[in-house]
Amino acid sequence: MTESLIIRGGHVVTATDTFRADVLIADGKIAALGVDDGWTADRVIDADGHYVLPGGIDTHTHFEHHNLKGTTRTADDFRTGSAASAAGGTTTFVDFVRGLPGESLIDAFHRRRTAAEQGSMIDFGFHLMVPATANSDDSFDQLRQLTAEFGATSWKFFMAYTGLMVPDDVLIRGFTEAKALGVLPMVHAENGHMVNAAVDALIEEGKTEEHHHMHGHPAAAEREAIVRAATIAEWVDTPLFIVHVSSADGVGEIQALQSRGRPVFGETCPHYLVTGYEDYSQADFEAAKYICSPPIRESSHQEPLWNALATGVLGSVGTDHATYTMDQPEDLPPQKPQGRGFFPNVPPGVPGAEERLMVLYEHGVARGRFDLNRFVDMTSTNPAKTFGLYPRKGTIAPGSDADVVIWDPQADHTISADRHRSRAGYTLYEGMSVSGAPRHVFSRGQQLVRDGELVELYGHGRYQPRTTLRDRTPTPLPADRSDSSLPIDCEV
Amino acid sequence: MTESLIIRGGHVVTATDTFRADVLIADGKIAALGVDDGWTADRVIDADGHYVLPGGIDTHTHFEHHNLKGTTRTADDFRTGSAASAAGGTTTFVDFVRGLPGESLIDAFHRRRTAAEQGSMIDFGFHLMVPATANSDDSFDQLRQLTAEFGATSWKFFMAYTGLMVPDDVLIRGFTEAKALGVLPMVHAENGHMVNAAVDALIEEGKTEEHHHMHGHPAAAEREAIVRAATIAEWVDTPLFIVHVSSADGVGEIQALQSRGRPVFGETCPHYLVTGYEDYSQADFEAAKYICSPPIRESSHQEPLWNALATGVLGSVGTDHATYTMDQPEDLPPQKPQGRGFFPNVPPGVPGAEERLMVLYEHGVARGRFDLNRFVDMTSTNPAKTFGLYPRKGTIAPGSDADVVIWDPQADHTISADRHRSRAGYTLYEGMSVSGAPRHVFSRGQQLVRDGELVELYGHGRYQPRTTLRDRTPTPLPADRSDSSLPIDCEV
Amino acid sequence: MTESLIIRGGHVVTATDTFRADVLIADGKIAALGVDDGWTADRVIDADGHYVLPGGIDTHTHFEHHNLKGTTRTADDFRTGSAASAAGGTTTFVDFVRGLPGESLIDAFHRRRTAAEQGSMIDFGFHLMVPATANSDDSFDQLRQLTAEFGATSWKFFMAYTGLMVPDDVLIRGFTEAKALGVLPMVHAENGHMVNAAVDALIEEGKTEEHHHMHGHPAAAEREAIVRAATIAEWVDTPLFIVHVSSADGVGEIQALQSRGRPVFGETCPHYLVTGYEDYSQADFEAAKYICSPPIRESSHQEPLWNALATGVLGSVGTDHATYTMDQPEDLPPQKPQGRGFFPNVPPGVPGAEERLMVLYEHGVARGRFDLNRFVDMTSTNPAKTFGLYPRKGTIAPGSDADVVIWDPQADHTISADRHRSRAGYTLYEGMSVSGAPRHVFSRGQQLVRDGELVELYGHGRYQPRTTLRDRTPTPLPADRSDSSLPIDCEV
Amino acid sequence: MTESLIIRGGHVVTATDTFRADVLIADGKIAALGVDDGWTADRVIDADGHYVLPGGIDTHTHFEHHNLKGTTRTADDFRTGSAASAAGGTTTFVDFVRGLPGESLIDAFHRRRTAAEQGSMIDFGFHLMVPATANSDDSFDQLRQLTAEFGATSWKFFMAYTGLMVPDDVLIRGFTEAKALGVLPMVHAENGHMVNAAVDALIEEGKTEEHHHMHGHPAAAEREAIVRAATIAEWVDTPLFIVHVSSADGVGEIQALQSRGRPVFGETCPHYLVTGYEDYSQADFEAAKYICSPPIRESSHQEPLWNALATGVLGSVGTDHATYTMDQPEDLPPQKPQGRGFFPNVPPGVPGAEERLMVLYEHGVARGRFDLNRFVDMTSTNPAKTFGLYPRKGTIAPGSDADVVIWDPQADHTISADRHRSRAGYTLYEGMSVSGAPRHVFSRGQQLVRDGELVELYGHGRYQPRTTLRDRTPTPLPADRSDSSLPIDCEV
Repeated sequence: MTESLIIRGGHVVTATDTFRADVLIADGKIAALGVDDGWTADRVIDADGHYVLPGGIDTHTHFEHHNLKGTTRTADDFRTGSAASAAGGTTTFVDFVRGLPGESLIDAFHRRRTAAEQGSMIDFGFHLMVPATANSDDSFDQLRQLTAEFGATSWKFFMAYTGLMVPDDVLIRGFTEAKALGVLPMVHAENGHMVNAAVDALIEEGKTEEHHHMHGHPAAAEREAIVRAATIAEWVDTPLFIVHVSSADGVGEIQALQSRGRPVFGETCPHYLVTGYEDYSQADFEAAKYICSPPIRESSHQEPLWNALATGVLGSVGTDHATYTMDQPEDLPPQKPQGRGFFPNVPPGVPGAEERLMVLYEHGVARGRFDLNRFVDMTSTNPAKTFGLYPRKGTIAPGSDADVVIWDPQADHTISADRHRSRAGYTLYEGMSVSGAPRHVFSRGQQLVRDGELVELYGHGRYQPRTTLRDRTPTPLPADRSDSSLPIDCEV
Repeated sequence: MTESLIIRGGHVVTATDTFRADVLIADGKIAALGVDDGWTADRVIDADGHYVLPGGIDTHTHFEHHNLKGTTRTADDFRTGSAASAAGGTTTFVDFVRGLPGESLIDAFHRRRTAAEQGSMIDFGFHLMVPATANSDDSFDQLRQLTAEFGATSWKFFMAYTGLMVPDDVLIRGFTEAKALGVLPMVHAENGHMVNAAVDALIEEGKTEEHHHMHGHPAAAEREAIVRAATIAEWVDTPLFIVHVSSADGVGEIQALQSRGRPVFGETCPHYLVTGYEDYSQADFEAAKYICSPPIRESSHQEPLWNALATGVLGSVGTDHATYTMDQPEDLPPQKPQGRGFFPNVPPGVPGAEERLMVLYEHGVARGRFDLNRFVDMTSTNPAKTFGLYPRKGTIAPGSDADVVIWDPQADHTISADRHRSRAGYTLYEGMSVSGAPRHVFSRGQQLVRDGELVELYGHGRYQPRTTLRDRTPTPLPADRSDSSLPIDCEV
Repeated sequence: MTESLIIRGGHVVTATDTFRADVLIADGKIAALGVDDGWTADRVIDADGHYVLPGGIDTHTHFEHHNLKGTTRTADDFRTGSAASAAGGTTTFVDFVRGLPGESLIDAFHRRRTAAEQGSMIDFGFHLMVPATANSDDSFDQLRQLTAEFGATSWKFFMAYTGLMVPDDVLIRGFTEAKALGVLPMVHAENGHMVNAAVDALIEEGKTEEHHHMHGHPAAAEREAIVRAATIAEWVDTPLFIVHVSSADGVGEIQALQSRGRPVFGETCPHYLVTGYEDYSQADFEAAKYICSPPIRESSHQEPLWNALATGVLGSVGTDHATYTMDQPEDLPPQKPQGRGFFPNVPPGVPGAEERLMVLYEHGVARGRFDLNRFVDMTSTNPAKTFGLYPRKGTIAPGSDADVVIWDPQADHTISADRHRSRAGYTLYEGMSVSGAPRHVFSRGQQLVRDGELVELYGHGRYQPRTTLRDRTPTPLPADRSDSSLPIDCEV
Repeated sequence: MTESLIIRGGHVVTATDTFRADVLIADGKIAALGVDDGWTADRVIDADGHYVLPGGIDTHTHFEHHNLKGTTRTADDFRTGSAASAAGGTTTFVDFVRGLPGESLIDAFHRRRTAAEQGSMIDFGFHLMVPATANSDDSFDQLRQLTAEFGATSWKFFMAYTGLMVPDDVLIRGFTEAKALGVLPMVHAENGHMVNAAVDALIEEGKTEEHHHMHGHPAAAEREAIVRAATIAEWVDTPLFIVHVSSADGVGEIQALQSRGRPVFGETCPHYLVTGYEDYSQADFEAAKYICSPPIRESSHQEPLWNALATGVLGSVGTDHATYTMDQPEDLPPQKPQGRGFFPNVPPGVPGAEERLMVLYEHGVARGRFDLNRFVDMTSTNPAKTFGLYPRKGTIAPGSDADVVIWDPQADHTISADRHRSRAGYTLYEGMSVSGAPRHVFSRGQQLVRDGELVELYGHGRYQPRTTLRDRTPTPLPADRSDSSLPIDCEV
């Protein structure tokens, strides 16, 4: 039982509204908003001059991620990953489940859930990855079972990477199965054949320095895969989510799809917004810090991505947080150095869980690209609605979980890996001054960050089943007036 | 001093959120949202099974409207017009000020404001109409003065109607002046020359029956005017608001403008959404009921308009409420019958203030075209934000005016002019069954509708100054933490 | 040595010009155009009141076509196929070469060339089909060799049909190899996985009647494949030819590609222009007549296809002539009847070689959709230029082969299989009245049709090597003024 | 009676074909193309290594042009203007007729025709200018009469310039009248109100140096006017011709219109293709050389214009040749110097009649932007077809006028005003090396240029009546087979 709490005098921000109000928290939930007119609570926090935001939701993390061959693992496990998230104002993450060789999806799910329940400081869920072989084995049976039993209501399909990438017939069947269940299909949209051909050509030409990674992933490959996945989704008649959109080309296709009414949703990541190829094109091994897929492209892609976020063409910002260190710690399998001088061997991934909100606030809100409401929407409300966590998560409203960030808009903070919780050991935003930062962070009323300092509550996090698309009917018409439950509640 | 009040057990709906909460109202404002944990108030209302919505905002009415020549007047004055609005769940309207022959804009403003303060039951504001002669007289001086003194922060330009329609040089200067002040320019977008030519051709061919009104206003004239106004607005670099968009053609242009980043906003009206030319193409004088400008077009335009509302391409729904009776009461100047058999003489205008929310709820929400949040946005929040009434109006949040509608989603109501408050004497939606209707309506905490029955409080309404575009900075960064005022408040 | 000839008094039509002139033919070539001012020739033909057109070029035929399994063969061989072509005013065809099981591409080429040289009445060339296995065998070596030695400068890739369809990595390598040689890649653009899924679903639902063939080939599959092939072609930086475009969706994508400057060319076929699903949706086995791939779709696709032809978005009209009889002759392997009641077993293909010009003239020119010059362009000049036959073929100009059609624009002809040369035994245009028809047809000065009657000159046809894209430089700047050869001539 | 002539051994180029042939000319017309097999003629010219092109057609000149107030006149009259044209390979021009103050359109037509017949070396026609006052005087009566009697089948409307610019109601009526007659309406597409506002603002800011002319004519004004004119044309249902398109913005709108099937045609001019604002932005009075309307814009507009020409979005290239000298000759009214330091007073116009073909050949054909056939199309065939001169003009085909240019593709020529025939005294292309130039030029068989030297045959030119749109039926179906006339001939 968490203590009751009054957050006094802050400016509450939702995806629509900004208003000054006191916030009463009890039993881990938002109890009231308004003028504290004699409210009682165990504790009062002064939020004068601060924003009171719903906790961030990061629907794209790779904590404790093992590669397909089992030869390496990300530096961050659920402990350090969730600590980094919490320190940055994020109170929920959604990670992935993929079966390792010889392991069933169901076994993998339980392995991952158990590990997260033991290690994570914050609440979490899992997307399920559809294997390339799904049309010829029992994968869909397992997927259906996990979805039904555990509310794992989003499935991811890879369109690139030999071994992971699904042929179109798996997309077709997978989207069809997803539709039947109300599951949201997600795609890593890159044409794997184009990527392979581009990488092979670079190797043949001897262009294997780290920065050439970008040339191995042409923007056209992203654009093509988006169109193909969206065409199949339209034919099957299902919504579709495009993860980590990295190019102006991709944005253009998504906008075109939306403008003819297609429910195609897109995500981008902080590193595509504020770093560019120019930042590492001249670097040697340091360029390995930037290696991720899709790649960080020429900076000319940044403004189209920002515009798409501002106008809602892209609805959310995830981190794709997948960390590998630049040195080689003894207790970890091979990290970035294993690919020194030969980019195809550098494990792809960048950190971001801790920096996401600060980078977006600084470059989005403080620089006038969008307002606070939009910021809340793309970092919390929209991801919650899209992935079936809403209204338990994603807003500050009576009845919602008390996942709250008290945000200091005069923080005068400098981002640095030195003080970070991630084990990455570096950040792409090293030295960036930000004017806003989380000062206090609460998860279900439990304080995880106090005056900027992390409270290490590993294991506090709880698995979050999520609603299907079908349970989120647009209009919650209460059938029975005496029914006092939240009509779109999703307790499981 | 209004009584304090608790609305208990309803589902509060904002443009983003839906949650079950009690609402505390005191001093005419929202005091708290949450669980009534010992709150005290003069009165408690049970809202179980109901939605609690922010009061509707209708930014397009023509109450007590005199035509340019002074030969006729709408049937509804501020008393009956505001009563109709309130009865339908609308608690704020924004009407227009235009100088009559020989009358200055400033005099017209005071005449209109005084009349509204005496007659209106609900709060109100005024858009200012820019005369066709503005480039050669002192109109812009008067406009600037009214804007500065009274917060009349939106100006309307007619692109059609001989006598009213402004040449492009007035658009150019007017948009430039508006930009300098942070005023939002609005256009009635029809190419008046095309309209005149079309009407003349119809007269020449003897096609003067009432229904031919539509053929006198080609959709191409709307499309052309939108492009022209938007081009000039882009060149001047100012936002632009397009009133009463009536055609798929118009929607297409607005979408194209928005997709290349232009701040062009659009409104449509209920009659363009649910009635069509087919409804009156065979009628005789009864077709006069449908005569308004732009005209009610073929029903093929309806779905594109609905889609534009659902996706936000069109942001708000006003009524363009301008009523003329189908018979001829003795106390009114010539109404619809003056044009019997000759459509150019039929005064254009249709009623809608009372039906707006019910029609949109039924055909929008209940039929699944969009959800309740979007409904609230297009009928209240977005108009409030667009025209500088937010956050005083347009949401249910602590600190906002207690303009609240308790909405019954199981109303089983039938729309009929028989029980309407408007003097129009007819409605285009006669006999329409709607599943949702306002049960109680409050304006600044004062009840105007009780169990569906109007409380006649003429003169309760207050003039609302509005903020300029400049005062609505996207990010309210409190400069001084001890400043306890809402940073984007707009009290005047 | 063919006889010399004067065609007197006709209206010569090229892709640009229409003029009245006498035409002098000598040595199988056009010798002069103008006023016969004392010319001498072996023979004079009166063409007064007739058009004198360049012979039709059909770059999409399947004569003597064996299916992949070797279980069936088209009804038309090179004799009957070429006779049908000639009778319809076509003097050149380009067919395909595909290796049968165990047969190399090179062997297949020689087998096909020999058969055509023995049987064909008209000149011919071959496109080469790239096998699905090309990335792992020696196919590209063979393709390169055939292209270099025999001027087979266009390669076709199937994106559908299990066994034929190439994965994207073959498209990528194939386009790259093609580009290196100046070869034009062609695609059968349908997403085979979508087609397979659609057909499987129909079988599962028991929808196997003949007309359901259309539902097995969704237009989205065509659209997707066009985008994918064009994206890869753009990435590789090569032109691309889309065969038999059948849908408005496909046309839309091609137009979009062209409008941003991509050299993507498209062909359609007569059956997509004038017949529709409505023509066979109610039929039983008769619907088998219409089975071809892509399918003949709803008639709403027709006007977009016509518009695309009129504006040049689609540049040429081929026939995809592949005939199977509706009864079962003893001397042929299984024809259409083998799939009675189960559409997946009906061999796909329709006749068209004989009707192409008449159908296009009637529905295109006579009905005012485009003019005679455009007709000549899409049926002769453009195919000749696109596939490297120009200027030897495709126009009426001094020096070109005397492939000439004397066209009667007052023919009052009725199309009927009764008098056709094809062995199909039926035509989709049975009973169609056409106002224009070929009266005389010449191939290299040799008359093949005389007053509408075929002269059976089997074996007259000669193999035509074709120029590469590289040999068709846009501007033929003569390097040496004394060089009297046609600068873009392509004799081999 | 001109002498008969054989042009031997050249490569004849039409808008479609390129072939080596001898050309026989008799009676001022093309008599035959082919192999000179004993032809007889008064004279033989060797064209070996040369192209034989149809004479250029410039449908946009302003020779002997008086400004509206009558205060100035272009430096070139019909003598020097036509001499410049002929020297550059142009054998037909179409100029304009506008009534001077107090002069009727009919009188103006005869004045202009007489002057041209006396002075011009080459054939000519006239577009008629529709006065701003046309809706309230007898202008349309005069326009109808001139069109009917003299085949003046194109009317021009100004959308800019106070005094000339027509309000939309004149566009509407004018397009309607034009449609009734089969006349092609043309517009100078700039929003005059925007231009005036921009110029006034520049004057107010003291930015009156010559180069600021560009800033007074924003590209948005061109775009807006194109959309408006095209919308009205679509509503009236008439084709439309946009003269001198100068911006990427304008091209974009024309392409969009064409891609939805609208018959909107566009022209650009050499100076928009190869010169840019950068060429004069730093200049003082020298910048006056570049002043014309629409202005010569930033060079970023050039490639979109070239692409539009290459793809046919823009169909023709005229010169808008309107010359004013940079010094002040005694025998001419005020020229460019009258506006020294104050751009609004600089008479707008640039030379181009002499350079058009050479500049387009060099930068278009020689640099690979398009081929020779496209070059012929945009400079001769397309203008001839668009404005009703075809087939008498615009091609090399038996029966056409012998307007022929023998073009040397190895000319190694340098453009310079020193040797020009225009009285402009300067050229924007001074010093440009071109690899192609006219060597011999013939008008109706009469030689006007011999080995690069002009033969001064003032008065040789003849007025050319032109066909209406209606007389150019797409399909010339000969009604009577014995009718031996060219079916679309247009002799008057």
